Amino acid sequence: MNDYKAPLKDMKFLIDSGSSENTEVMAAVLDEAARFVESVVAPANGPGDRLGCRFESGDVYLPQPTRDAFKQYVAGGWVGISLPEQFGGQGLPDSVASKVSEMLTSTNNALCMIPALTMSACKALLSFGSDELKNTYLPKLVSGTWTGTMCLTEPHCGSDLGLIKARAQRSEGDRFLISGTKIFISAGEHDGSENIIHLVLARIQGAPDGIRGLSLFLVPKYLEPLDECPQRNPVHCIGIEEKMGIHANPTCTMSFESAEGYLVGKENEGIKAMFKMMNEMRLGTALQGVGLSEHSFQKSYHYATERRQGQALDRSKRSSQSADALINHADIKRMLLTQKAFAEGGRAFCHFCAELIDRERFANDTDTDQEATLLLGLLTPIAKAFLTETGLESATNAIQVYGGHGYIKENEVEQLYRDGRIATLYEGTTGIQALDLLGRKVLGDQAKALLLFTKKIHKLCNSILDDSSSSKELVSLAEAMAPYSKEWPQLAQQVGMKALQDHDEVGAAAYDFLMYSGYVTLGYFWLYSALKAYQQSSELDSQLVASKLKTANFYVARLLPRTSTHRTSLLSGKANLDSLGEDEWILS
Amino acid sequence: MNDYKAPLKDMKFLIDSGSSENTEVMAAVLDEAARFVESVVAPANGPGDRLGCRFESGDVYLPQPTRDAFKQYVAGGWVGISLPEQFGGQGLPDSVASKVSEMLTSTNNALCMIPALTMSACKALLSFGSDELKNTYLPKLVSGTWTGTMCLTEPHCGSDLGLIKARAQRSEGDRFLISGTKIFISAGEHDGSENIIHLVLARIQGAPDGIRGLSLFLVPKYLEPLDECPQRNPVHCIGIEEKMGIHANPTCTMSFESAEGYLVGKENEGIKAMFKMMNEMRLGTALQGVGLSEHSFQKSYHYATERRQGQALDRSKRSSQSADALINHADIKRMLLTQKAFAEGGRAFCHFCAELIDRERFANDTDTDQEATLLLGLLTPIAKAFLTETGLESATNAIQVYGGHGYIKENEVEQLYRDGRIATLYEGTTGIQALDLLGRKVLGDQAKALLLFTKKIHKLCNSILDDSSSSKELVSLAEAMAPYSKEWPQLAQQVGMKALQDHDEVGAAAYDFLMYSGYVTLGYFWLYSALKAYQQSSELDSQLVASKLKTANFYVARLLPRTSTHRTSLLSGKANLDSLGEDEWILS
Repeated sequence: MNDYKAPLKDMKFLIDSGSSENTEVMAAVLDEAARFVESVVAPANGPGDRLGCRFESGDVYLPQPTRDAFKQYVAGGWVGISLPEQFGGQGLPDSVASKVSEMLTSTNNALCMIPALTMSACKALLSFGSDELKNTYLPKLVSGTWTGTMCLTEPHCGSDLGLIKARAQRSEGDRFLISGTKIFISAGEHDGSENIIHLVLARIQGAPDGIRGLSLFLVPKYLEPLDECPQRNPVHCIGIEEKMGIHANPTCTMSFESAEGYLVGKENEGIKAMFKMMNEMRLGTALQGVGLSEHSFQKSYHYATERRQGQALDRSKRSSQSADALINHADIKRMLLTQKAFAEGGRAFCHFCAELIDRERFANDTDTDQEATLLLGLLTPIAKAFLTETGLESATNAIQVYGGHGYIKENEVEQLYRDGRIATLYEGTTGIQALDLLGRKVLGDQAKALLLFTKKIHKLCNSILDDSSSSKELVSLAEAMAPYSKEWPQLAQQVGMKALQDHDEVGAAAYDFLMYSGYVTLGYFWLYSALKAYQQSSELDSQLVASKLKTANFYVARLLPRTSTHRTSLLSGKANLDSLGEDEWILS
Repeated sequence: MNDYKAPLKDMKFLIDSGSSENTEVMAAVLDEAARFVESVVAPANGPGDRLGCRFESGDVYLPQPTRDAFKQYVAGGWVGISLPEQFGGQGLPDSVASKVSEMLTSTNNALCMIPALTMSACKALLSFGSDELKNTYLPKLVSGTWTGTMCLTEPHCGSDLGLIKARAQRSEGDRFLISGTKIFISAGEHDGSENIIHLVLARIQGAPDGIRGLSLFLVPKYLEPLDECPQRNPVHCIGIEEKMGIHANPTCTMSFESAEGYLVGKENEGIKAMFKMMNEMRLGTALQGVGLSEHSFQKSYHYATERRQGQALDRSKRSSQSADALINHADIKRMLLTQKAFAEGGRAFCHFCAELIDRERFANDTDTDQEATLLLGLLTPIAKAFLTETGLESATNAIQVYGGHGYIKENEVEQLYRDGRIATLYEGTTGIQALDLLGRKVLGDQAKALLLFTKKIHKLCNSILDDSSSSKELVSLAEAMAPYSKEWPQLAQQVGMKALQDHDEVGAAAYDFLMYSGYVTLGYFWLYSALKAYQQSSELDSQLVASKLKTANFYVARLLPRTSTHRTSLLSGKANLDSLGEDEWILS
């Protein structure tokens, strides 16, 4: 049931950098990644789901097809594609690496979480690790011979990291002994790697309560040196979860029993280092949402062109057969276009974020860096929450296009939803992203970053509206988008005023503000894509140009108007959420 | 993990009929049903999902807990509660029986599909079967000793029944020999019943093509008389599906190999009889949506009161502990209230439909009957599609409230979504309901039924607005609802005008028209509930009255505004769906 083809045409449309030599190299990387993903990664997805992981007296076994695919993944050098050459990586810009990540996660979410976490661990080490830690651990992590984890959650604390109980006791030198139980640790233990490097949040004896007393530690499964008789560190998997999906990725409960660990970064500044990883992971999760929309779209499209059911209401579309292909029914097209608009719009959105990361990495101009950092801060929670929520809508639409045939496992459609369902939960739920966006990134910063972004919207719209040669379609798209550059910050201001009286007004508006922001942001990227396609129409193939303009038009006509509901809801205030007394909830 | 308590207070609020004696009897039935459901049906739900059904050389075994619960279900006489006493039923009105159905499906969707299909088969036989068929089959079906199925779908046809290939060859007398393959047959074969009675759509030799050539047949697994050596009819299960959910209900592929069958109703009028069953099942599926919202709400509420995570933004809600219960966070309350509004509003909606069925069944006044039939026709597709879509939103919200803990199987939250996901697919997808509503029930009838219903909205709003003693809250609810009584038929008219040029405009507007209709209809029932609570506030407990008024207020502030998006989308017309050329869809 593997009918995924990497959306190379769209990816190349985005990465086109102007410099043709560079573009060609990047395109070659994408072609190679597409071949690898389509032939190795995608075929392991269904079997991995059906077989699942196996836990046996402390050891965890990946499903054979997943393990085999991961081996080839490592052998191909894909883990380190965006990591520094100094440690064995390929040093590719994020704008390209993120496309590869999208292909991977699109076709095998469970498998790709292993390298994704490894990459994040590398980035935390690169930013905060000592030279000794870097030299010891990075080469093996970058190559993928060893894999990494992120150990935050404990039974009593998920979103609220301040409650962490894991403790670190000083040993000799920079060494600590780590104790505690961590849950929901993806790939915490498995047989696809020679060693597993845990990054663990714990509290050093005597450190303050709350998040300001947390430090980050590197805790390896096997201690260095890994010679013939490797020394096992007392960190063990004591069970794996049965879950709704991502069955090929073991979700482990890890017990640290005075395990040896090394401080990463400064004491009591663990949360800073963890957020470095977390922000990486959030953008990675946004790509999962995009990949989910893309794969859902492709599956739905193919089924809709093959399956015949019912006669088209539009007589011009009727075939000589007794039933017409599903794609001739308007409501099926509504679902397909929704998926396509989320996938391609989301891809353009993530591409912009990746370019911001590259600007931070490669630019020397401090002003540019600052702008990039500000925009990334604003866009990360929107991308994470909005693109995963819309990814789920795409996946549930795929089941709907397939009808009853989408509900059975054989077609591997329902798996898309089950696997994708984790994305609005992990790395901070949608509600957590919403608070981060409205509370911290917008109101906490006097909307500085938001105004920077709405200025971009304003400029883009004006560049079309002020140009008398603009096509009618573009003008109508720009007219639809233009009011948002003013309205968006105004809405933030209105909530901000109320929040002066009661800070909980932020909580009451946050979710709808985030979704509103998501639809506006996606609208901006659709307008941007339409303009880019139009401007480059002489070089691009005509299908691509038409596809972009028409999908942008659909987006503005049918999806952008969802802002209206979110606007009303976010302005309605906290009173309507807050009135029920304790015994007024349940009417049993 | 069984924390469901039947929402008896709300159910009794609805069935209060004025006649206190009658009300007491009905309340006693509900109390008894609640005890049975909470102690027998609900506990079998999780284990049934984990164990699943087993197929072994033609035989199908239900999971033991499901089979045991079903035995007690039959022993308690619950299958026939709304069926005629003449055949062993209890003859209770649908307004009560539907509450029992909701409790059952709310707690064990997989199990309750067996008696639900049996009840529908009984109703088709009651309306269309010969006396001989009724006397032979009804007593055992009504008691639940035998179970029934509905055999429509074939590998190449689901929504489009006109394509059915199963054939019927005339044998002696009223007997036919049925041949063909049917798929997706719920409980087509299982070990929980002595006999299985299939109602099968097939085409008699020489009958016309399309749905006008279909006849309905009763095909028993074992032929009468069922003595010591029962004669097996050649109808066999040749496999069961692996599915996303409802694992405790076997979804069978059935092979009919010249199986003996008896005509139900007239030749070539099978679709009429099948639609009798289908409309019953659609309202039953609407109840599944309500039950899903209710159970999702209860699970979420209990978790939100127990789990502590993060400090409340509202300082007045902060406890002395380091973290506050989830329910103190505004966004959690938004999700809980959404579930509650869908559950209770949907229950009032289904209660109204059940009363219409009772009016059809018991009233002698032809005018009343006609009005009931018209309204039921209009409301059935809205109830089926809208209440299952909102049921899924409630279930996905439950996962969201639980966070990562909702994704693991242990808490039986994700099962709610997996089981519930079937409801927008079977008995006609949401897209099919949408076409039925806009194409047949509204435009096909010059909006006669719609105008009947909007007149009710208009009258209800006016009764509040014209009464100077109405409370401020009620007035503001009525003011929000009033414009819809005009706007709703106007929107239908606008689409209808466009459809004169191109019938496909109906398809392009249908889904959004249905969702718009759903939000307005639910708004009506919230206003109705608020008014009823207010008027009876001296007799009712004060928590119930407050709960209704406040939840209605939430609904109008935060959910009813979703009509706005659907209005814009449905008016945007077919052009934005119809423009992409064949090679403009996929950008691979």
